[in-house]
This record gives sequence, structure tokens and C-alpha cells, in this order.
Amino acid sequence: MAIDRALVERRLDELYAIGAEPDGGTYRPLYSAAWATAGEHVERWMNEAGLTTRRDAVGNLWGRAEGAGKAIVTGSHIDTVRHGGRLDGALGIVAGLTAVETLLKEKGKPRRTLEVVAICEEEGSRFPTNFWGSRAIVGAIDKPDAAMAAAMRECGLDPAKIATAARDDIDTFVELHIEQGAVLETSNTPLAVVSAIVGTAHLEIVVTGRPDHAGTTPMDLRLDALAGAAAMVQAVESIAKSLGKPAVATVGKLAVEPDQINVVPGKVIFTVDLRHADLGGRRALEERIRSLCATISQERRLGLAIRTLQEKPPVAMHPDVRALLARAAKECGVQAPEMVSGAGHDAQMLAARCKVGMIFVPSIGGRSHCPEESTNPEHLRLGTEVLARSLELLAY
Amino acid sequence: MAIDRALVERRLDELYAIGAEPDGGTYRPLYSAAWATAGEHVERWMNEAGLTTRRDAVGNLWGRAEGAGKAIVTGSHIDTVRHGGRLDGALGIVAGLTAVETLLKEKGKPRRTLEVVAICEEEGSRFPTNFWGSRAIVGAIDKPDAAMAAAMRECGLDPAKIATAARDDIDTFVELHIEQGAVLETSNTPLAVVSAIVGTAHLEIVVTGRPDHAGTTPMDLRLDALAGAAAMVQAVESIAKSLGKPAVATVGKLAVEPDQINVVPGKVIFTVDLRHADLGGRRALEERIRSLCATISQERRLGLAIRTLQEKPPVAMHPDVRALLARAAKECGVQAPEMVSGAGHDAQMLAARCKVGMIFVPSIGGRSHCPEESTNPEHLRLGTEVLARSLELLAY
Repeated sequence: MAIDRALVERRLDELYAIGAEPDGGTYRPLYSAAWATAGEHVERWMNEAGLTTRRDAVGNLWGRAEGAGKAIVTGSHIDTVRHGGRLDGALGIVAGLTAVETLLKEKGKPRRTLEVVAICEEEGSRFPTNFWGSRAIVGAIDKPDAAMAAAMRECGLDPAKIATAARDDIDTFVELHIEQGAVLETSNTPLAVVSAIVGTAHLEIVVTGRPDHAGTTPMDLRLDALAGAAAMVQAVESIAKSLGKPAVATVGKLAVEPDQINVVPGKVIFTVDLRHADLGGRRALEERIRSLCATISQERRLGLAIRTLQEKPPVAMHPDVRALLARAAKECGVQAPEMVSGAGHDAQMLAARCKVGMIFVPSIGGRSHCPEESTNPEHLRLGTEVLARSLELLAY
Repeated sequence: MAIDRALVERRLDELYAIGAEPDGGTYRPLYSAAWATAGEHVERWMNEAGLTTRRDAVGNLWGRAEGAGKAIVTGSHIDTVRHGGRLDGALGIVAGLTAVETLLKEKGKPRRTLEVVAICEEEGSRFPTNFWGSRAIVGAIDKPDAAMAAAMRECGLDPAKIATAARDDIDTFVELHIEQGAVLETSNTPLAVVSAIVGTAHLEIVVTGRPDHAGTTPMDLRLDALAGAAAMVQAVESIAKSLGKPAVATVGKLAVEPDQINVVPGKVIFTVDLRHADLGGRRALEERIRSLCATISQERRLGLAIRTLQEKPPVAMHPDVRALLARAAKECGVQAPEMVSGAGHDAQMLAARCKVGMIFVPSIGGRSHCPEESTNPEHLRLGTEVLARSLELLAY
């Protein structure tokens, strides 16, 4: 199949321009004007490609080529973070659409129903929700709050009809996405098949000591909350390293009280983001972190309180889809290794109702969620070709 | 000499009530209404004690018993921090006044001029200055800024006359102060003679890494500024511990960028407050901290920038005054060990123009600069008695 590389690039450029921010990047939050314009733009492409389009109750945009049985679906989300890049979400839509368009042109009507979806929201960058679009598809969202309901109505959507967005007629969902990390680039790999999306836990850890005068309190009489927290930050890093890949653990936020230059810190609050591809690994990571923090706080006679802010289980991609994606890659001339996705994706929600699979292409410098987000055009073309070949294997 | 313990307590209570805050503690910032009222109150006590009073150009209040030669001076500062306690500064004024009053009553006119001073400002809690009063006395202040000059005029003081506050006719300054730490309490010591006031350096350390996605960036591909800063915080603590007393080093402020739960920190800014009783020790402390931070940043391929925000040399108390204070203590029945002051005091400024010495009494729980600041009444009495005996040895 001959993927039109220039067309992929042009479509990505056009989408990137919608919501462009004066200080760099683009911003298409859910139900905003930029979001609506982008949707109309994609719908035009879908129609030009010969797809029948419709919007569901939450604003997911579907383009359909009718066939038999449950649907084979590809696509990604159309919303972006603030100062978002050109590829996150957009690539899955543009590549999916271009792949389906190419298939329809070259192979004609599909045996099985084939659809492209522009999912309305994944990033959670406007409302305190994420995976809004994919959760609607699997029937797993509640009522929106008043502000969100008002925003839906402004876009001509009726919040009372959310339940109608749920589908049980999808067989397989495949998505092309950028890696958003530097693993593929570092190992010179042009494409990978995702084996699983990591499980994530977010912890908040509060360390309590005693605020003391920095001059009059000898080192041995201190209960320094920051010195204790620093030991814990070190522990979080070394535990993740010692457990080995794909375990990662990050202290991203940290606040000191009273945060004065000449006062020994009395309290520190920090967060831990920890991820692993399997639940056992994620739990082992969390248990070791909890246990070492407890030891450190006891040794230093500091107070310690740990609470879980959020917990998401890891989601394995479907073995049949993984095998199929690997086969498609091979037929396109590349050996695609498997890798774990450290970031969340719509596929992890859709897995509740259908078979899912994902393809990753490299991110230059691992950059994502920023204007610098980019991928070698040859990798974009290759990803689109492998996606097209996968869809052909599934729907023709 | 019979110190009236109840009188000392009553005077401290009266002063503490001036500037009392509804949510606890007292606040008498420089040139405020509470500050002016407190000064008038102390002036009335001075007059009742038979002292001749005057205010100098910055508002230091002097009470004088005429004698021969250069003056023997005692006292402390009358301003407080916000939510300040009952003793910091106030004790040195009340004890000094009560000691001189008792001497005048029991021993009559002094051989040498004897003065009590209520220094206008030491804390720096209203204007971006501190040691304003003692720096005026040694002729080491510049022009106040516009806001401060206006505040002076409201109190009837002429900013143009600041230079007239300088004195070169002081022989010795002795001050009783609370320790503001827990060293005396911990070692069951009722009173100590200060050997030196520590030198302080304030450093600002900026650690630069790279902000990365917490999920998609494996541990070995990170440039985590916070993990590096945490290693430095640990190093600061262990270097101060290994150098031994009186070295102290404190990381009091720390800020993370971008400070998001799911982003590897790209930048951390933190401060180090380091103190030592001698300049060599202070410099050794700083050099070891700088060197270990450099090593950590190199090992972790992080950027490092260190700048000095402030630097104050240590000040030794005069050996003659130290010996005299120890003798006075012994004559009052206590063996007074020497100790280093980790906090700054007016004596460190006055040392430029006269002999200085200080007596410390214990702070319960080491608390200071807070409503909980307190000292056993017997220790307050003992401190006042030793101060009175010292003044007798110096002026009679």
C-alpha cells in the first residue's frame, strides 16, 4: 500500500494550526471553539474519503465504511493539553483516516465494518475528568458537572443522552500513537507494538518534624522534615531502579513548610507517581516505597502519613491484536519489538469492551505535551503503513 | 543583691501586652504605634529608677546614671517579630533596667557612667533591614528608604540626623538574652556565657535537569533535578554533622518546577543557611557543601548554579567580658559554661566599637519567636542577678 506521506504531514499541519497559541503549541480543550473547528475539519476529511459520519452524545466523531459484523475501529483523541504538540492524539486520527482512505481506494469496500473515530477527550485539560470520550464508549461515565453540562449544550450535545454513546458492537480497536518517551529513539527502533499500558498509583506523603531556629538548634536536636523527605525521595528513585524496567517512580511535587531560609522545615508534603506494567510489580513497588518511608521516618522520629490519591490498574493489550500488529509490521519490512506504554491511552478504557492494540513510533528527544513534540516523517509514514496493513488484515 | 523576681515578671508581662495580637503573641514592629507605646512605658520605668532619659536620632532609648569615663551599657531591642514571644529582646531591657535600678538603690551612684538602652530595632520584621538600632550606634547605617523615612518622621525622628546616633563613648556592652535553642535545657544548665556569635552564609542553589513524562521516561533516561537536589539536601545535613558542633547547616526553602505529579522535575531551587563560630569553620562547611553538590550534579549530569545571598562573619565576645561574666556567675553560685550563639544579636554589631559580652538563660523546649517562648522564672531571676553583679563589677 502506498501511504501518501505528504498528505499525512499536511493534515497534521492543518490540525496543529487549529487552536494554535500565540506563545507556542496548540490548545484544543474539550467543547471549546478550537475543538469544534477541528472536529468539523476532520469530518470533512472523512466525508471526502467516502465515510459516513456521525457524532455521538458526548461528541465523539465517527466515520464509517459499512461491512459485516462488529466493527474494526482506529483513531485517537482530538483534544490537546495546553501548549500541546502536533502529534499527540492528532497522529492517531490523521494516520487512521489516511490508512482507511487508502484501503478504500486500493481495496474497495471492506468485508467487515471499518471505522475511524476522533475521540472527544482524553487529556483532562479542561474539566476534572479524563478518558471522557472512551469512557462514554464503554458506558463508564457519570453525569457531567454543571459547567461541563453547559459546555456540552453550547456544542449542541444533550448531557441527558450520554448513555447512548455506549457501544457493544466494536470488535477491535487499534491506534497509532507517538511513544512520548525516548526509549525507541535511544535504541534506534522505528516502531514498536505495545504489550501493556502501565498501572499507575499516585501517593501523597506527608512528613512531619518540628520547625526550629536554623541557628540555635544543633544538628542532633533537630526533627528536620525536609532532610527526612530527601532521604525518602532518594529511596523512591533507588527502589524503582532496583526493581528494574518497566518500573518507574517519580516525586513530581514537593512543598516545604514554613519554607523559610532560617527555619528547619517542620513539614513536607510530596507526591509519588509509580507505574508498572503488571499489578504485582506495581504493588511491589508501592509496598517497598511505603516500607522504606516508614523506616526512614522511624529512624528520624518524624511523623508519616501516606494516602492514595489515585489508582489505575495496568491493562494488557489483546494477545491476538499484538500478534497481528507484529505480523503487519513484518510485512512492511520492520521487526517490531514490544514495549510497555508508560502513559495512559484510550485503549486502556476501550479494553473493557473490545480487543485493543497499539503501535508506537519514536518521539524525537522523547518530547511530548509541548511544542517541540515531533517524529521523523519517515517514522510517521511507516507507522501509518503498518496501521493500514493491520486494518487490511482485520477488515478485508 | 536581692533581685525582685516578681518585678521582673510583672514588667515582662506589661511589655508583652503592648502589641498583643488577637491570634497569639505580640508584634511591635519598628516605628509602629505599639513600638512607640512600649518605648514610653520603658521610659517611665527608667525615670522611676532615677535614670536620665533621651532618644537618639533613630529612636534608641537611653537611660543614664552619670559617672566617670566611657559608659557601661546594658539592654536589648524593643521590637519583635510577628507573633513574637514575651522574652526575646524584652528580657534584656527589663533585666538590665531592674539590675541597674537595684544597684542604684543598694550601692548608690556608680563610679562609672551606667546606661540602660532599649534598642529600636533588631529583627528586621517591618523594613528590609535589621540591626538598625545597633548599626546606628556604631555609625554603620545608610539613608533609610522613602517608606522607612516617612515612618521615622511619624515618630518625630529626623532621618537626616541619623549620623548623630553614633557613639564612641561606650566601654562595654553586656546583654542578657534567652538562648532561643534547647542546648541549655537539654544539658540542665541554668545559665551560660556566650563565647561567640556564629558567622552565617546564605546560599541559593539551582539544580537544572530536564522535565520528562513520569510514565514514558525510564529511570535510566532521566535528568531528575529533585532526585539530585535530594542527594544534596542529604549531603548538607551529613557534612554539618560530620564537622561537629557548632557547625549547623539547614535547607529551609525548596521549590520544584514544574511541580506536577506526573512530570519528572526539571528544576529545583533551594537555600542553605550555614553557620559556624569561627570563620575557618564556616568556610570549611561552605567549601565541602559546594564541592559535594558539584560532585552530585556531575554524576547526575545536572546543571548547578550556586550564589551567595548573604554573608556575615562570626563575632567573638571580648575575652575580658567573658571572664568577668563567668566570675559574676560564680559569685552568684553557678558555674557558667561557655556556648556559641547560633542566632544573631545586637552585640555582634556593637563589637565594632566596644567590648561586648552576653549571658544566655534556657528557653523551654528551645521555642522562640512564637507565643510559646518562655523561661523558668528562677532562671530569669538568676540571669538578672548575674547581670547585676557583672554591672557592679564593671561600674562600681
